[in-house]
Amino acid sequence: MYKPKDSSTSPRFSGVRTFMRLPNIKTTEDIDFAVLGVPFDTAVSNRTGARYGPAHIRDFSVLLRPYNASQDINIFDHCSGVDYGDIDIIPGNIHRTYERIQEGLKPLLDKEIRPIILGGDHSTSLGTLRAFKEKYGPVALVHFDSHSDTWDNYFGEKYMHGTPFRRAVEEGLIDVDHSIQVGLRGPLYGPEDVTDPRDLGFETILMDEVHELGVENVLKRIHKRAAGAPVFVSFDIDFVDPAYAPGTGTPEVGGPTSHEALQYVRGLKGLNILGFDLVEVLPAYDNGDVTAALASAVAFEMISLVALEKAGRL
Amino acid sequence: MYKPKDSSTSPRFSGVRTFMRLPNIKTTEDIDFAVLGVPFDTAVSNRTGARYGPAHIRDFSVLLRPYNASQDINIFDHCSGVDYGDIDIIPGNIHRTYERIQEGLKPLLDKEIRPIILGGDHSTSLGTLRAFKEKYGPVALVHFDSHSDTWDNYFGEKYMHGTPFRRAVEEGLIDVDHSIQVGLRGPLYGPEDVTDPRDLGFETILMDEVHELGVENVLKRIHKRAAGAPVFVSFDIDFVDPAYAPGTGTPEVGGPTSHEALQYVRGLKGLNILGFDLVEVLPAYDNGDVTAALASAVAFEMISLVALEKAGRL
Amino acid sequence: MYKPKDSSTSPRFSGVRTFMRLPNIKTTEDIDFAVLGVPFDTAVSNRTGARYGPAHIRDFSVLLRPYNASQDINIFDHCSGVDYGDIDIIPGNIHRTYERIQEGLKPLLDKEIRPIILGGDHSTSLGTLRAFKEKYGPVALVHFDSHSDTWDNYFGEKYMHGTPFRRAVEEGLIDVDHSIQVGLRGPLYGPEDVTDPRDLGFETILMDEVHELGVENVLKRIHKRAAGAPVFVSFDIDFVDPAYAPGTGTPEVGGPTSHEALQYVRGLKGLNILGFDLVEVLPAYDNGDVTAALASAVAFEMISLVALEKAGRL
Amino acid sequence: MYKPKDSSTSPRFSGVRTFMRLPNIKTTEDIDFAVLGVPFDTAVSNRTGARYGPAHIRDFSVLLRPYNASQDINIFDHCSGVDYGDIDIIPGNIHRTYERIQEGLKPLLDKEIRPIILGGDHSTSLGTLRAFKEKYGPVALVHFDSHSDTWDNYFGEKYMHGTPFRRAVEEGLIDVDHSIQVGLRGPLYGPEDVTDPRDLGFETILMDEVHELGVENVLKRIHKRAAGAPVFVSFDIDFVDPAYAPGTGTPEVGGPTSHEALQYVRGLKGLNILGFDLVEVLPAYDNGDVTAALASAVAFEMISLVALEKAGRL
Amino acid sequence: MYKPKDSSTSPRFSGVRTFMRLPNIKTTEDIDFAVLGVPFDTAVSNRTGARYGPAHIRDFSVLLRPYNASQDINIFDHCSGVDYGDIDIIPGNIHRTYERIQEGLKPLLDKEIRPIILGGDHSTSLGTLRAFKEKYGPVALVHFDSHSDTWDNYFGEKYMHGTPFRRAVEEGLIDVDHSIQVGLRGPLYGPEDVTDPRDLGFETILMDEVHELGVENVLKRIHKRAAGAPVFVSFDIDFVDPAYAPGTGTPEVGGPTSHEALQYVRGLKGLNILGFDLVEVLPAYDNGDVTAALASAVAFEMISLVALEKAGRL
Amino acid sequence: MYKPKDSSTSPRFSGVRTFMRLPNIKTTEDIDFAVLGVPFDTAVSNRTGARYGPAHIRDFSVLLRPYNASQDINIFDHCSGVDYGDIDIIPGNIHRTYERIQEGLKPLLDKEIRPIILGGDHSTSLGTLRAFKEKYGPVALVHFDSHSDTWDNYFGEKYMHGTPFRRAVEEGLIDVDHSIQVGLRGPLYGPEDVTDPRDLGFETILMDEVHELGVENVLKRIHKRAAGAPVFVSFDIDFVDPAYAPGTGTPEVGGPTSHEALQYVRGLKGLNILGFDLVEVLPAYDNGDVTAALASAVAFEMISLVALEKAGRL
Repeated sequence: MYKPKDSSTSPRFSGVRTFMRLPNIKTTEDIDFAVLGVPFDTAVSNRTGARYGPAHIRDFSVLLRPYNASQDINIFDHCSGVDYGDIDIIPGNIHRTYERIQEGLKPLLDKEIRPIILGGDHSTSLGTLRAFKEKYGPVALVHFDSHSDTWDNYFGEKYMHGTPFRRAVEEGLIDVDHSIQVGLRGPLYGPEDVTDPRDLGFETILMDEVHELGVENVLKRIHKRAAGAPVFVSFDIDFVDPAYAPGTGTPEVGGPTSHEALQYVRGLKGLNILGFDLVEVLPAYDNGDVTAALASAVAFEMISLVALEKAGRL
Repeated sequence: MYKPKDSSTSPRFSGVRTFMRLPNIKTTEDIDFAVLGVPFDTAVSNRTGARYGPAHIRDFSVLLRPYNASQDINIFDHCSGVDYGDIDIIPGNIHRTYERIQEGLKPLLDKEIRPIILGGDHSTSLGTLRAFKEKYGPVALVHFDSHSDTWDNYFGEKYMHGTPFRRAVEEGLIDVDHSIQVGLRGPLYGPEDVTDPRDLGFETILMDEVHELGVENVLKRIHKRAAGAPVFVSFDIDFVDPAYAPGTGTPEVGGPTSHEALQYVRGLKGLNILGFDLVEVLPAYDNGDVTAALASAVAFEMISLVALEKAGRL
Repeated sequence: MYKPKDSSTSPRFSGVRTFMRLPNIKTTEDIDFAVLGVPFDTAVSNRTGARYGPAHIRDFSVLLRPYNASQDINIFDHCSGVDYGDIDIIPGNIHRTYERIQEGLKPLLDKEIRPIILGGDHSTSLGTLRAFKEKYGPVALVHFDSHSDTWDNYFGEKYMHGTPFRRAVEEGLIDVDHSIQVGLRGPLYGPEDVTDPRDLGFETILMDEVHELGVENVLKRIHKRAAGAPVFVSFDIDFVDPAYAPGTGTPEVGGPTSHEALQYVRGLKGLNILGFDLVEVLPAYDNGDVTAALASAVAFEMISLVALEKAGRL
Repeated sequence: MYKPKDSSTSPRFSGVRTFMRLPNIKTTEDIDFAVLGVPFDTAVSNRTGARYGPAHIRDFSVLLRPYNASQDINIFDHCSGVDYGDIDIIPGNIHRTYERIQEGLKPLLDKEIRPIILGGDHSTSLGTLRAFKEKYGPVALVHFDSHSDTWDNYFGEKYMHGTPFRRAVEEGLIDVDHSIQVGLRGPLYGPEDVTDPRDLGFETILMDEVHELGVENVLKRIHKRAAGAPVFVSFDIDFVDPAYAPGTGTPEVGGPTSHEALQYVRGLKGLNILGFDLVEVLPAYDNGDVTAALASAVAFEMISLVALEKAGRL
Repeated sequence: MYKPKDSSTSPRFSGVRTFMRLPNIKTTEDIDFAVLGVPFDTAVSNRTGARYGPAHIRDFSVLLRPYNASQDINIFDHCSGVDYGDIDIIPGNIHRTYERIQEGLKPLLDKEIRPIILGGDHSTSLGTLRAFKEKYGPVALVHFDSHSDTWDNYFGEKYMHGTPFRRAVEEGLIDVDHSIQVGLRGPLYGPEDVTDPRDLGFETILMDEVHELGVENVLKRIHKRAAGAPVFVSFDIDFVDPAYAPGTGTPEVGGPTSHEALQYVRGLKGLNILGFDLVEVLPAYDNGDVTAALASAVAFEMISLVALEKAGRL
Repeated sequence: MYKPKDSSTSPRFSGVRTFMRLPNIKTTEDIDFAVLGVPFDTAVSNRTGARYGPAHIRDFSVLLRPYNASQDINIFDHCSGVDYGDIDIIPGNIHRTYERIQEGLKPLLDKEIRPIILGGDHSTSLGTLRAFKEKYGPVALVHFDSHSDTWDNYFGEKYMHGTPFRRAVEEGLIDVDHSIQVGLRGPLYGPEDVTDPRDLGFETILMDEVHELGVENVLKRIHKRAAGAPVFVSFDIDFVDPAYAPGTGTPEVGGPTSHEALQYVRGLKGLNILGFDLVEVLPAYDNGDVTAALASAVAFEMISLVALEKAGRL
């Protein structure tokens, strides 16, 4: 049974920084979840630096405590987890990185351990989904993002952080009929940027509609769409407004607040979630560490969902 | 026909930084709008540095793409525009700067090209309004700002960034009966700071009332007030809460969100708008570039209004 | 009669920085309120640096003007105040610091002058409450904070920034039956972190509930609880969301906006408030000075409440 | 007799920030020196913000202690001084500002008090030299700067931060035969930028020569030039390399170190110095406050020279 | 004849930011040099973000004036140049980027125009050297860097920013017998990191030896080595100490000062230099813009060398 | 045998951040040195935040490679070491912290393992020296610092970061006859600040003298003084000039360069050094991470000295 270092014996700011002060052990024994980093950022179209995302989130996450009052659950009463370290990605080589991601996730997925993956840029999700496919078959994607990431290519390059979900559909990794994207906004290349994800089969709720519907109604649509299916949750930090999450590569103004962001993750309770990723945290622009604070909280809510599952509270 | 550099052949982060990657040409031929900077910041009463505003907004604006999903319009299907460069202002000399602004805008206004002016401090609006007066006669002002900028003087100085709209009324540049100010808030010198703009003839909606009314009702009041008149839109970035726009000279807490800010600009659709300015962006305090992100988006919405006009969608 | 330096004769950015440009005089004559700093930050469990809080707030506060439009009151028409300087705390020694706080506040409280205390970390409130007890007996606490600060100890240390209100209850400094805490959120150690303050006698409104109730209803509960009692208001800047207040030691995402924060302070009008503190402002993380802007505005609203009291407008 | 607040009774970081914790009193009685700010920055050709220079230097200067080991003197054994506050400059209006500077310095100069003037941009030196002329006649200028500031005009504007010493020569304020400029470097408009100051009568040591000569030899040339004359010392912080002084408006790489900078000021001992200014400190670019640390130390050395004079140790 | 925009008619901070305010024209007619960016940073082993290097250097370079006093030359009396924009690199794909670099440089090299290339990471030099080989045959490399960049591979990847000069030797692009590396320092993997470049044929002067020899003697060794050969100069900004150049990806402490850095470039006068690159400027860590200031000055010295060549002053 | 994680299989920026990528194991078996943090910063008189020093240094140290070319030694050919984590200090309670430090170091010292201690503020050295005394008796102190840290008290507090070495002498922990302090500079309280450490028995070389003597001569005096004695090396990062080390609490301008700093540590080769500390690294002011780069390099040189000792190369 693995849980965070006891903060009554050592200050939370002390010691080597692991996620939530969990032990840094690469084990698949006796754990329900594993937090791990995928510090790959080669595939970005704008600001780089998400390779430092995992370290940055770990730094702030030492403040996390085990009890989630909103969900009324003490995580480690119901589950065990570790900081699994980072996958040995290959900077500059996305295909070898995809192999490493697949190999890296396999031992965890084989034991149905829930990974909480800290990116890294969003291209990494393709490697992740390949690993999930291998174990679970196609999964329903619940995707929070200000971009749909279903472009075909950039300058002829097919594997970039704006293309993973088109590739994933093409490769049959996603059960699109139960998949949904929430938060698309900002200037686009054309109306096809709105219709393309829909043509690929996704349900898409644009940010304008999100603001109109409100959190509760959006969550209802997500549940309606994904209920029953095996789900993978992909959370791009740029889903949230840059005031709350400046530390990211392609920020889009006009997004939700931090409170709403947490409500969205909490509200996934009840879905059959097999894994999570949280991507595009970019420390170089994260003044005041507010993005790290938010990302830590989002990951905490993800782990809480695992705990609720293990507690049978669905 | 001028439009942004093709981002499918070169990355958006590459090349010399012009607004939205538009060509940097000082032409008045074949264009519907011109983005131009007025990097003058001599007339400020507090933090200085808005002279770097235009460069800062240009830097971020390379991320802008041509399609506006909220308005369902692809800008360059309907209009053409350039980055017209900056007006050669004279730092330290506001009167010569006013002359330069007037001379600089004349060729554009003469051809009824819509200028999107990036400040610079708010004193520059007086030069702008003089230019508009010359071409169009008095214009209705739709003014988003946390300050009314109708003070009489500072230390006896009549031309400062807190005085342009009093001067403009005195000079007969503004059709006050159709003008409206939205967003006034923060500690004031006295109740006259609230009543003065009203005594000058402006309709004024204080921020407290803005929060109570909501975006839709505020927009109704703006339309009711300005409908039919030739309109100039002046957007001071400090209208928005400092969490969303820290990079400004006299921030006032308690303002609207970035989403609301965009809604206000989008909601001006239907008015007869002849020009825009977007002022008081101050890079030195813009940590994480969130103000630049917001200012880029606001300017994008302004250009979208021009496109809607050209498309006959009013 | 003391009031801010006249900003029509010297720019607000000039001169030695005192709060709101008030005279820096350690007097108890002819004043209704005193702004003073308690730059002690030894007792923190995470980020340090709140010792620079008072200087940081003073720096920004020079922008404050005397008229509060939301409350329709010109402060210095009704009251007089000074920047009383800082209490000579002893860094590293909390008990001697408590003595200094008590001695320092005594002359002010003896004359029923309202102190506006700028922290420093939240441990300082215990010294403050001891001083209030001596003069006024137990006071009702109206406490805005993302933490309840009622832990028993850290590593055996009983006097830390997370423990002052438990100590205060134990020492009989607080009239808990009229006290209320608003804003608790974030990961906790266990459900007892929610129930403990209630077991101590506090009414507690968690942030989730705050979001559901809305400002107006929360204010009603505060008034219902504290009406009639002598009140001390303690405002921890981390009550507000880190997007609006990144400059603090233990930020918790999911909080209220700056506008809501101001509404809460304004809404205390009518209570019998004897003093205020505003703690945990930490400049090192306050990128763009937005926290300083907010803290200045909060302190301004506190002073406005004093002015309303003196004006008999309760 | 005025001296810094006792740091054995209150921490140096506490209280209202005055220079060196000196009393903030606008007196000319019983003082030998006065530190005062001239927060004017309207006349700059590049980055703005030196108006915050005085406040920024004051903030760091609280660390200064009274004994100068390099000169073996305890300042307050030999002299008395105050933080005289700032001169009420008029932002945007250089001529009225010059009047204010002259009026502001007169009472000090009339009593032969040594002013230590914290800028503000370098244009302010013209006002200062006018004040000195009125009292003392023309003074020899000892000028440390990476620019000669003897340009004729910018865009026709004659009063800018690059022109004060040409104006001063034209107005007969400077005894050029005993004046010397040290540190000129960086790309120039043409060879006349090197010859012009010499044509005006200044001795000029370019930075390349400074590096070759070394501190000791440069000081010899300064003394040879200025010995016997009444001297005014003008120190532009951009004299020092930007690694040591990033917080300035027109940084030029290739300058001296902080140690060398201090040696230059210390080495002025023996000259008949009537006043000093220290200009162009610009906080917005002063990451880590290293420029403030250096400026505080430079001002401390200036005051030490006054103390040496008063101690008769020349 | 192309030269910078006249700064007597418009402030240097105004307008679209090109290098040194040169016209942004992609021409090969009537020019002697071209400044161009290669914003590729995929191949880095540590911090990313050099893709913003060219924009960052351009931003600061507007301060550059045409006359170099140290070399006594007015650049545009002898040569003409443009800001050629950026090469359309392919982020994430180094091989296609190499092709683009070769194609991009060809028109310039064909006309013997001297390119001043702003990186980007150091991997780009391989593409550059391929282009030079095609036109000129193997060139002598004069290489300033804290790393030798002659590693064989990273994780099996052969084309990274630490490997270009090994690849270049293998491909026969470099005339190693006349090539020299200056500045190697910092912790290494083993003694082979020192001997490898020597085994490849380079002369190598480690930083310890550089400090011992002094600038003049190092320059003598460079001239002795490279005299007579066609030379390419590669300047990695991390050659300079991080105090002077924090904005880079793999900083190594213990390097030269900014003054020494400039002396090294100036001292190359007399060599037969065909082109330059200046790489690894990384804005996200460039606090206070001191790295941009230095890089601008280094590029200015490079252009001055071209001017000296054109002036026949070798 | 413990050594850093292999950087040929995983990028240095990946994984949980330990010092130099050493295994994070709290073992005393099979190790020659242990890097450990003491994140205590309660005892500071000015800026706080050194509690984050160890984490900050670890973050940068992942760039360190094993071979030291200046000393021609590959560390792990001769010794083994771990990241021992942090000592569980008690924030706010210096005496309990001293106990924890003593208990924490005991197991290491008992086995004559060389600790490399990362502070934390300088008060921690007293706890460290107590631990050394217990094992080894009094040790000679080789102390690099811009302050002597031999004050008697602050506000009556005897255990502060400016007092540890007076306490240590009083407690008989230091063999003063072989001890030496290097680097004292900056404004002092009086001449006794220079004479006090000498009166306590220390040899003291003030910074002015350091600059005159040069590195080699200073090292000779250190060796002359400390030769033969068991030595403890205490390196306060503020010994180095703030341009190279801005991230510290009480910076003093006029210090040595980074190159000189490394030379001083390297030059200790030959002394009988039993342990090291490296204190006062304060991340909040470490813009661009240059202080972390320097501190990593200093710690690397310390470890190299251990390796040289183990290799018998003294």
